[in-house]
Amino acid sequence: MSVEIKIGKREKAYELLQADAQKILKLIGVQMENLTMPQCPLYEEVLDTQMFGLSREIDFAVRLGLVRADEGRELLSSLERQVSALHEASTQK
Amino acid sequence: MSVEIKIGKREKAYELLQADAQKILKLIGVQMENLTMPQCPLYEEVLDTQMFGLSREIDFAVRLGLVRADEGRELLSSLERQVSALHEASTQK
Repeated sequence: MSVEIKIGKREKAYELLQADAQKILKLIGVQMENLTMPQCPLYEEVLDTQMFGLSREIDFAVRLGLVRADEGRELLSSLERQVSALHEASTQK
Repeated sequence: MSVEIKIGKREKAYELLQADAQKILKLIGVQMENLTMPQCPLYEEVLDTQMFGLSREIDFAVRLGLVRADEGRELLSSLERQVSALHEASTQK
């Protein structure tokens, strides 16, 4: 029973973090569509702030023992790669 | 056993959040001592960013069911009150 609960919280923690990463990606996508200026300082600021927020969540989950440190790093760098790909696709339009 | 584990994670979650709030308070204190300018935009930006980071952690813990929403709000507003008090003490020097 205790193991089940632990796994449940771990899964939920990872799911929440992934959902938050997707939300950031979507926000950045919307920003790119509407601002059409990835060089805009506001864009950079929003991205930095959002990435910082997610990194704080991940760090918290790792310290709680709900997510492994390498999983957390991978989640963050995967998001970074996706944002870069979005960025590239948008500048090549 | 399962209940114990759950309580353990809840306590740990709250402890971590409180420790993070204390870290922010300390950082703001150091900034005030050294910058001696609470009106400085950099100071505001650091404070906003740190508060945002903590609010993301708290929100995550609430969504995971580890911290009650009202506990989370109280933790954040308690930190805000402490920062204000620090701010006031520093401007009255």
